[in-house]
Amino acid sequence: MSDERILLAHGSGGQLSHELVSRVFLGRFGNDTLNALGDSALLDLPNDGSRLALTTDSFVVSPLFFRGGSIGKLAICGTVNDLAVAGAKPLYLSAGFILEEGLPYEVLERVVDDMARMAAQSGVQIVTGDTKVVNHGAADGLFINTAGVGIVPLGRELSPQRLRVGDVLLINGTVGDHGIAVMLERENLGLRSELASDCAPLNGLIAEVLEACGDAVHCMRDATRGGLVATLNEWAESGACCLQVEETAIPVREDVRAACELLGLSPYYAANEGKVVIAVAPEAADAALRTIQAHELGRNAAIIGQVVEGKAGRVLLRTSLGARRLLDMIVGDQLPRIC
Amino acid sequence: MSDERILLAHGSGGQLSHELVSRVFLGRFGNDTLNALGDSALLDLPNDGSRLALTTDSFVVSPLFFRGGSIGKLAICGTVNDLAVAGAKPLYLSAGFILEEGLPYEVLERVVDDMARMAAQSGVQIVTGDTKVVNHGAADGLFINTAGVGIVPLGRELSPQRLRVGDVLLINGTVGDHGIAVMLERENLGLRSELASDCAPLNGLIAEVLEACGDAVHCMRDATRGGLVATLNEWAESGACCLQVEETAIPVREDVRAACELLGLSPYYAANEGKVVIAVAPEAADAALRTIQAHELGRNAAIIGQVVEGKAGRVLLRTSLGARRLLDMIVGDQLPRIC
Repeated sequence: MSDERILLAHGSGGQLSHELVSRVFLGRFGNDTLNALGDSALLDLPNDGSRLALTTDSFVVSPLFFRGGSIGKLAICGTVNDLAVAGAKPLYLSAGFILEEGLPYEVLERVVDDMARMAAQSGVQIVTGDTKVVNHGAADGLFINTAGVGIVPLGRELSPQRLRVGDVLLINGTVGDHGIAVMLERENLGLRSELASDCAPLNGLIAEVLEACGDAVHCMRDATRGGLVATLNEWAESGACCLQVEETAIPVREDVRAACELLGLSPYYAANEGKVVIAVAPEAADAALRTIQAHELGRNAAIIGQVVEGKAGRVLLRTSLGARRLLDMIVGDQLPRIC
Repeated sequence: MSDERILLAHGSGGQLSHELVSRVFLGRFGNDTLNALGDSALLDLPNDGSRLALTTDSFVVSPLFFRGGSIGKLAICGTVNDLAVAGAKPLYLSAGFILEEGLPYEVLERVVDDMARMAAQSGVQIVTGDTKVVNHGAADGLFINTAGVGIVPLGRELSPQRLRVGDVLLINGTVGDHGIAVMLERENLGLRSELASDCAPLNGLIAEVLEACGDAVHCMRDATRGGLVATLNEWAESGACCLQVEETAIPVREDVRAACELLGLSPYYAANEGKVVIAVAPEAADAALRTIQAHELGRNAAIIGQVVEGKAGRVLLRTSLGARRLLDMIVGDQLPRIC
């Protein structure tokens, strides 16, 4: 069994496709909706004026497994988190696999195991899927796409347009862990570290913040590709406002800081997979911080800055010396294929 | 402009990512929901007990362009059709792109043009998306995943479990066109033919059949990978029934038949991208056939068989000589990367 590999015929729609679906997917993801194996999953909707949230992400991370996670764990957490930061309760996911011919069956099974575990942990069901196989050399092992749907309760509105001067910016812990962990794994730099990816489903933590602070929560976003800086710049631009963060307040692990210094990178631009930036009205900031810190995924949470008067579209960093500098988007990337 | 190519940095989440999204996607797919560029698209739901249909497909066809279509056209039609055969009105799509570094910008733009055209034609909006770029050699040009949501009206129920002995099986035209067209394109066999892929959105035709025949429509499926035979076998298995089709009744183009004979293939196993198999109660068969034939995508529609007494899970072909033989699933595939 451990020698078995994916064949082109596993993507054919014929008997081997069926065998793959039954053996690898149904056993691990199985639920009544998926088991029906229809062209579409049919899902009951609430009847109360809620809105539907729809999101999608493809995952191409290299390597497939790294300390703290895998492409499978990322594929579930990334989509769950995208729904959660939109204010939605994540409910249902689709999963599309592109497999390279020759991929060991056992690798696929480990990835799917991770997906099943994360789906259970975050309370979502994988209800429909698709598998394609491409010839050897036409894809790098395994790519996954997940799309997700969730329900946004009537009246909930989270968006950069709700940002107001004075709003407080929080984050639920240290930045850059995922990006630097994957890089250390990949580049084999000989840096010894306990560092692991922060990949985690944030919907539980986010639900608690929304419960505690209600409409005082104005906007949330998970700071993935492009890191904290990309998120803040998107907010400053979409919300037509100016944001300021304090260098001394942004939590960074010592080993992440050291690796970044050695390599000429910045942790503020490095990807996270378990970090959410939350903007709340100033009067709710303390309650939000306490709620986040009480959650196991928010132990190192901090208030990192606020929305300030200033030129719309700008993000400022106040350094430890009190100087301010622009934190603008970089043109490209520090590190490709990070998720 | 025509020399521009996709760079790794286009997938970084930085400025080049934003430029790609604005320049290539927003201009072509643009709608208020997509333009908001949130983590999730937020969609209004009906308030009347309808169900949601969710489906996904990845597209890896090679070559990217072929007579009658492209990977972009496939990516829209495939997902629209999966929703439509579930009885849903297709409404919203997500689009996830995996791009190989070095892909000419112009190729991506042509693909996205096709997607935009097909989305408009089939009445769906692309409301959220994602782009990843992998290094040269790690993917073959361009892969697309689309997920789709649609609404199934209260009380509509289409499934193989509704198949009954006597139900009539119809198809909206010739089988195998897509599979053989792509193969001729790819293999450069020197066979001259007017053959084009049948790739098309079927939601309009399907809506007309449902309007005309209502609850007498028991099951529908688009016969894609694995062709007509895969669809019939899935029905026979899921519906625990026996199906019989008539060799003389199944429409096949002469050039498809000739190519298949030359190559030792069967058109019944070849992929379609614009063909739907429909099972209706016998009293509705004539109305269904007339409705389909009146639609431009159903000119060559035919009644091809029915649900018969017999061993559950079997599909029988009655040949032109009156003999019956099993039409079972093949283990692998005639042709990989057909969609």
